[in-house]
Amino acid sequence: MEMAIVNDDMIPMAQLAPVYQDRGIFFGDGVYEVLRSYGGRIFALDEHLERFSRSLKEIWIEGVDVQEIRRKVVAAFEKAGFDNARCYFHVTRGSEPRNHLPAKGLKPNFFLTVNPLKSHPEEKEHGIKVCTHPDLRWKRCDIKSLNLLPNVMAKMVAEKKGCYEAILVNDAGNITEGSGSAFFAVDAKRKTLITHPLGSEILPSITRSMVVKIAKNCGLSIVEENLTPAQAVACEELVMAVTTKDIVPIVEFDGQTIGSGKCGKHTKALIDEFAKLARG
Amino acid sequence: MEMAIVNDDMIPMAQLAPVYQDRGIFFGDGVYEVLRSYGGRIFALDEHLERFSRSLKEIWIEGVDVQEIRRKVVAAFEKAGFDNARCYFHVTRGSEPRNHLPAKGLKPNFFLTVNPLKSHPEEKEHGIKVCTHPDLRWKRCDIKSLNLLPNVMAKMVAEKKGCYEAILVNDAGNITEGSGSAFFAVDAKRKTLITHPLGSEILPSITRSMVVKIAKNCGLSIVEENLTPAQAVACEELVMAVTTKDIVPIVEFDGQTIGSGKCGKHTKALIDEFAKLARG
Repeated sequence: MEMAIVNDDMIPMAQLAPVYQDRGIFFGDGVYEVLRSYGGRIFALDEHLERFSRSLKEIWIEGVDVQEIRRKVVAAFEKAGFDNARCYFHVTRGSEPRNHLPAKGLKPNFFLTVNPLKSHPEEKEHGIKVCTHPDLRWKRCDIKSLNLLPNVMAKMVAEKKGCYEAILVNDAGNITEGSGSAFFAVDAKRKTLITHPLGSEILPSITRSMVVKIAKNCGLSIVEENLTPAQAVACEELVMAVTTKDIVPIVEFDGQTIGSGKCGKHTKALIDEFAKLARG
Repeated sequence: MEMAIVNDDMIPMAQLAPVYQDRGIFFGDGVYEVLRSYGGRIFALDEHLERFSRSLKEIWIEGVDVQEIRRKVVAAFEKAGFDNARCYFHVTRGSEPRNHLPAKGLKPNFFLTVNPLKSHPEEKEHGIKVCTHPDLRWKRCDIKSLNLLPNVMAKMVAEKKGCYEAILVNDAGNITEGSGSAFFAVDAKRKTLITHPLGSEILPSITRSMVVKIAKNCGLSIVEENLTPAQAVACEELVMAVTTKDIVPIVEFDGQTIGSGKCGKHTKALIDEFAKLARG
């Protein structure tokens, strides 16, 4: 008889709940989103759903009604009732006995959580420390997939070094993005905000796209180009951008102090502009 | 209140079973093994457990008793009672609310299944078709991790082309391995079996190591070197090696017939030698 063991319990396979045979756990065969609300308003829902649709399409998961997901996201935020909340959701290709090749007509699984978000004004004032780490990820980082082990491992290394985030560096020696965030460098002389070009090496971050949108209101033009860690350290300000925290100044990079070691004026301007967007 | 949605059901987070918040599904934050029995005897258990220990260590999952896993594997094979069975098991870093950085002291999760294996003598006689696919995987393919989306996608592409397996080709234009198997080419003139060198680009396949062991009994010496698809097609025989099927001849590669289009004599010798090993 086909058997399964879950932790210490042996049971017949026939009694196993489908979640244990989710292709999400066997293969990371799924895609996800993280979005948030500010003061009870869901931020950038259209953008997140649009990116999610693209992720589904890129890994050929079919039969998902994204409008139904929209309704679930809205209902979950409402039911949870937090002013500032984070919503995580994923869709996997479905549950079935493990086999690389999925069965035809498999029904995708949906999962979502909503939890409250604290604000961290001290982070925006004093900034965070980061360190570099080799970018070991796969070659389709534009897909927001559940294959995140290299990101987790980079983050664990960063924590050991007393850093909040790992900034990933590709084989060519250029910064791609953070293990869980977008990365920008301010060149104050050129009045530019430098970031890695979109493509398969980075996630098309929604927060990144918002920064691109507000940069001109801060007197900065966007330059999508390669940047080495040495070039980053020579910049006046460095910035991390991520959905749950929006814009956070980076004040230390591989042990070297950036600018004044506090939030710089251009980063401050970006934070203020972003706050206007978030208030809607 | 923190809320969750599982498929169509909204529930308070407090009622959510831990399996839904497994880091295995959020991040693929875990490692696995697949092993099999022949005629009621578990094959290469020591080798699989040794590789599994290494995988755990490489991703810094601590607190797992591999001897306890050995007992579970043996008990599951016995309880299932199949002559020829496959056993899959994984350990993930544990269950907790989603956060890249794992909590200290998190308890790993264990999961295992055993199911019967059919033999496919026709595959060993007539062989299989394969096609090449870009190797899009991460840079630590020596770790048998749950991050397998690029493998799944390659396999799906192969199926669409009527092929059983995708043979992965790296940026340098060399074959690394199959999406779920090891790959060998027979150079009959040099009496060599060519395969990609061990390292971070391929899994240290147990079946591969068995093939390396039996090759000399078949009059073949092992050469670990780069091989392009064009060089592979020019070889007399091509071979796929995988735990569940051991050795299978490849008779078509990107639409081109290999050798006689049937199982070649060197591959036949390898299959026979492997069968001796498997009988123990």
